[in-house]
Amino acid sequence: MNLRIPGPTPLPPSVLQVLQKQMINHRGPEFAKLITGVTEDLKYFFETENDLFILTGSGTGAMEAAIANFLSPGERVLSVSIGNFGDRFAQIASAFGADVVKMSVTPGTAADPDEIGRKLAADPAITTVLVTHNETSTGVTNDLESIAKVVKSYEKLLIVDGISSVGSIEIKTDAWNCDVVLSGSQKGWMAPPGLAFASLSPLAWERFAAAKNPRFYWDFGKAKHYLETGETPWTPGMSVFYALEEGLRMMKAEGRENVYARHARVAQHCRDGVQALGLKMYADQNYASNTVTAFYTPEGLSSKIMAKELEDEYDTVVAIGQGATTETTMRIGHLGWVTEAEIDAALDVIGRVIQKQPAGQAR
Amino acid sequence: MNLRIPGPTPLPPSVLQVLQKQMINHRGPEFAKLITGVTEDLKYFFETENDLFILTGSGTGAMEAAIANFLSPGERVLSVSIGNFGDRFAQIASAFGADVVKMSVTPGTAADPDEIGRKLAADPAITTVLVTHNETSTGVTNDLESIAKVVKSYEKLLIVDGISSVGSIEIKTDAWNCDVVLSGSQKGWMAPPGLAFASLSPLAWERFAAAKNPRFYWDFGKAKHYLETGETPWTPGMSVFYALEEGLRMMKAEGRENVYARHARVAQHCRDGVQALGLKMYADQNYASNTVTAFYTPEGLSSKIMAKELEDEYDTVVAIGQGATTETTMRIGHLGWVTEAEIDAALDVIGRVIQKQPAGQAR
Repeated sequence: MNLRIPGPTPLPPSVLQVLQKQMINHRGPEFAKLITGVTEDLKYFFETENDLFILTGSGTGAMEAAIANFLSPGERVLSVSIGNFGDRFAQIASAFGADVVKMSVTPGTAADPDEIGRKLAADPAITTVLVTHNETSTGVTNDLESIAKVVKSYEKLLIVDGISSVGSIEIKTDAWNCDVVLSGSQKGWMAPPGLAFASLSPLAWERFAAAKNPRFYWDFGKAKHYLETGETPWTPGMSVFYALEEGLRMMKAEGRENVYARHARVAQHCRDGVQALGLKMYADQNYASNTVTAFYTPEGLSSKIMAKELEDEYDTVVAIGQGATTETTMRIGHLGWVTEAEIDAALDVIGRVIQKQPAGQAR
Repeated sequence: MNLRIPGPTPLPPSVLQVLQKQMINHRGPEFAKLITGVTEDLKYFFETENDLFILTGSGTGAMEAAIANFLSPGERVLSVSIGNFGDRFAQIASAFGADVVKMSVTPGTAADPDEIGRKLAADPAITTVLVTHNETSTGVTNDLESIAKVVKSYEKLLIVDGISSVGSIEIKTDAWNCDVVLSGSQKGWMAPPGLAFASLSPLAWERFAAAKNPRFYWDFGKAKHYLETGETPWTPGMSVFYALEEGLRMMKAEGRENVYARHARVAQHCRDGVQALGLKMYADQNYASNTVTAFYTPEGLSSKIMAKELEDEYDTVVAIGQGATTETTMRIGHLGWVTEAEIDAALDVIGRVIQKQPAGQAR
């Protein structure tokens, strides 16, 4: 199967191999070595010296962890949404009682840092900014460096959903002053879903100390205490740890900058190929994502029908759209274990499916 | 390695085999089939027709899910604790603002159903009872049937931590009227950690509708909505699903009653063997657990030293105690993929370690 969704991503053979490793004691020396090494490697890709914790849960769990650990009920938060995952962050904050000021954009576009600055200037009660680095639902990457600069000029806490970016698209957590950065194992890391990551700056710890939202399972204070002895507070998703260790080994062997360059190259290859098929891109191409490409299906051709035919006839799995454009857009994931070859194979069969449709023409 | 802790438990070869399966689309037909089948199989072992959901997280995550979904801040809750995991349930409820009435017992003993009845009679504001079916920290199994009878006679919501019991020790969720029952993949299910399970009675759904605690990641309403199309709200721990499916296949092939009988037999074998070594049992033997056996180390011999020697010299991993008896008790796990042979091997080397100690004599 050519699995070309933006996560779970395909696992390389050596990752599949280590998934066969037998269970070990999560409170013993072998696991302490494992979590210590994996944590260090993640910090290298997060480009941070901050604390970093590995949670057992999905990426959305890490988003909830950020809300639970750093906010209090009634606290005013600017939630910058450029798509479904930005909306989700706002929803979690609201569910926990935050006073959410939502800033949305035209779907397919990026957030304007200056607009964020104006919102912060106009509303000094805002303490915290939630922002998506890479929006999986639209295939847009925000200019996080510029956004961070604005947010930090107002001295707000900056919480970044980097779930589908970190490890694939460069993020300079410390240099850009990102207080909290989140990611998930099933994205660029070439591991199965089930672990999520969060880095915490000193300011994040200050907020942690003051925050009043209820927290237990996601409590970073407990995570910090246990990590000191190479443990997690609760039983960790052990097999995903094995996979993650191997995925990180491969990423380091390739070289951090080479990993980013490959993602950029393969993404460009994908965008060129989609356009060569006469399909219209969904995202503003100035902010096109290097991990996922979204495009409109041909006029009159539902993404659901296309996706079903791609799977049934060609063993190729792409993602349909999300939200309002579920049926009119499709998304190709190109993160983690991917080269131009898998993209060519996917584009080839997408072209065949379109050609077969009598109504198939560019939208 | 002879891994004899009460979870993660060793994985059978066929489970390790399926862990090698490539990732699939978590929003596609293959996963829909997988989650539907696994959910049905879990219901069979939970002995329930209630809704049952699979969460991506540890067992503690399922405990937090129960608190988040069914309680409101200030709500009065009776938390029946017979050890560390019972304490944890009370702590989670407190973290979410519940008004917790805690009932504790002498460590190593079970909860007295009549005492629970007296607490409920004396304090009609209590809406909900939290109880541990099998306490992993002490090796005690509560008489859940009798406890449930009392709790339901007062018409309270009954939430059961069955993390280390369900699938290994019989629990009649529906016949006993247990409203919410929790378990975790790394216990009797012969799968890695990373998935947790919760069954919900109609009364639980009523409480869900009224509960005001913040919930998002653990929201059972969202889980129900997505399960209708064979999905989970957030990306599921896919590889653990593969393992769980195979573990359940093995359990069904053995037969539910045979699985319980094997656990009872192996547990008795373990208890007999520990006593034959001259060691004193920690748990009240009338309530001895069929999934974990706790015993005192010989006088003057720390469990940490014993555990280290067992691991370093004999490749055998047992658990040390928890809480006040961390250093003076040890615990042998016998749940999931286990027979008398692994217990004999563990007891043999425990006997050798004790004999080597100059001070080694029964406490």
